[in-house]
Amino acid sequence: MTLPLLPERLDLGHVREAARRIAGHVKKTPVLHLDALDAVAGVALFLKSENMQRIGAYKARGAMHAVGRLTEAERARGVVTFSSGNHAQAVALAAKTYAAKAYIAMPVDAPAVKVAGVRALGGEITFAGTTSTERHEAALALVHATGATMIPPFDDPHVVAGQGTATLELFEQVLDETGANLDAVVVPVGGGGLVAGACLVAAAYGARIFGAEPDSSDALAQSLAAGERVTIAASNTIADGLKPVQVGELNLAIARDHQVESVRVSDDEIGRAFATLLFHGKTLVEPSGAAAAAAAFARKLPRGLARVGVVLSGGNVGGDTVCGLLAKYAPHAVD
Amino acid sequence: MTLPLLPERLDLGHVREAARRIAGHVKKTPVLHLDALDAVAGVALFLKSENMQRIGAYKARGAMHAVGRLTEAERARGVVTFSSGNHAQAVALAAKTYAAKAYIAMPVDAPAVKVAGVRALGGEITFAGTTSTERHEAALALVHATGATMIPPFDDPHVVAGQGTATLELFEQVLDETGANLDAVVVPVGGGGLVAGACLVAAAYGARIFGAEPDSSDALAQSLAAGERVTIAASNTIADGLKPVQVGELNLAIARDHQVESVRVSDDEIGRAFATLLFHGKTLVEPSGAAAAAAAFARKLPRGLARVGVVLSGGNVGGDTVCGLLAKYAPHAVD
Repeated sequence: MTLPLLPERLDLGHVREAARRIAGHVKKTPVLHLDALDAVAGVALFLKSENMQRIGAYKARGAMHAVGRLTEAERARGVVTFSSGNHAQAVALAAKTYAAKAYIAMPVDAPAVKVAGVRALGGEITFAGTTSTERHEAALALVHATGATMIPPFDDPHVVAGQGTATLELFEQVLDETGANLDAVVVPVGGGGLVAGACLVAAAYGARIFGAEPDSSDALAQSLAAGERVTIAASNTIADGLKPVQVGELNLAIARDHQVESVRVSDDEIGRAFATLLFHGKTLVEPSGAAAAAAAFARKLPRGLARVGVVLSGGNVGGDTVCGLLAKYAPHAVD
Repeated sequence: MTLPLLPERLDLGHVREAARRIAGHVKKTPVLHLDALDAVAGVALFLKSENMQRIGAYKARGAMHAVGRLTEAERARGVVTFSSGNHAQAVALAAKTYAAKAYIAMPVDAPAVKVAGVRALGGEITFAGTTSTERHEAALALVHATGATMIPPFDDPHVVAGQGTATLELFEQVLDETGANLDAVVVPVGGGGLVAGACLVAAAYGARIFGAEPDSSDALAQSLAAGERVTIAASNTIADGLKPVQVGELNLAIARDHQVESVRVSDDEIGRAFATLLFHGKTLVEPSGAAAAAAAFARKLPRGLARVGVVLSGGNVGGDTVCGLLAKYAPHAVD
């Protein structure tokens, strides 16, 4: 007996409901706080380490919630999704958790570490082109062929509510551990699932919400500026998880309603943040997972904030990428 | 009014006293627990992330305690130490905290990242040879010249009590967070400061204590087997923090009294543990900091243990070392 989720009514209550449903199936990740990183950012940073989440990314939350809400009959027909990486692994994990079959459409150029992750979880991969549109079409064909249920990567109320649980935990953990609230939270933005979920939480806590995007892949910033959903040109940003050419319709509506503030970061800023997090935070993130921290380290957040939450969204990255980034950015790890 | 510390009377009370003295000056580091690492080790692992400690290593604890106990007059004359790395930074940090001057004897081949760390904290470095003996002599000359107080790297009751606070926090945090105790704790062994401190805690909690050493630098294992302190040949292990050619006299006495069990790990096992911690634990350690985890991942702990604490002792490592290790061990990150 769960309430129907109408987009216009999504609020903290739905995030709390999602948190109850996924408890025990996803990890309560630690919040990290290091003086050396505060010194770089010029504010107190509280890092929600979703790189340590199951499957190495917050995406486990939304998928677990969405699959967990299906009926027995729906689960018996399986689930389908399309993703360049972490959402694919997340759906495969959620399907395995609920003994459902997972059909996954992935791009032919998906990182090997993410392909291996899906396969290790028993997901059945269909490779389809390189664009989001191509793999979306492949996923629709899978739905047609199997009768399985589509679990969208971001433009879905259940996925949004599930992703919101990362930010809910962050606010709760910081309050528990320090006795004070966050002034703001910064999250990376790809399709907008994480930021939309974060909005529902930040609003309830009276905190500002910032969405960090690669400057070459700033669909949210452009859409907020235009007042409507904008489709951007494909980007080659190193943040491979933040490449969608548009944000979700629901996600944009929530972001606009909650006055998300956009912050654009360059690939160099992301690369430097990666190295700073590794050497001074001792924590490994994938480039997308460094984008929100990059906004803080590059001092692109407005003055006047004292306590800022940052979601480290994922940590699925291979050795070659790590060493490529270190060759370029390790000497610049500290400002 | 602090009690005199007589080696034969060192116990948990002294560790608790050290914890009170250093509170606020060192960080309460997080305990990490990841399913992916448990799967590799075959037991539940609780990782005390002293790589996130101030100056990037547990050594901050012992030095802060030892310097914090000095009188005003002693502090005015400064402090001296000799170290290949992390203890040097630790003494520099402690001296800075208490507004004392720090004179540090370091080997000419000390890692650049550790030299830079000492200088950034205002420590005055004297380079002296490559062996522990050479830098010890240089440090004694500095004491003679300046009247400053020697803060030994490990063979000292105040340093041992301070290092013990890492293990004390680990046991307390695991009990708080999970409601159950650890069966055992594994720590890396160089000169024996960390393991001696851990003994004082593990004994009080009824847990077994394991000391992990590189197989080419196993001074503790040899000394325990011989029943007396053994000086070993210099080693070229990749675990540069675990190279002392003998353990401290006090440290050996404590280890023997508390029935420390030795575990020898190869450089390959340490390298694989480094990669496993990075990719599956998302956490960066220096090679020495991976030695205790290596004992668990290589399944060298006895059967029958269910819940094992592991101290990740430090995380001061440069980009070249990281990429050198990944080139060799990244494909073997998971068994």
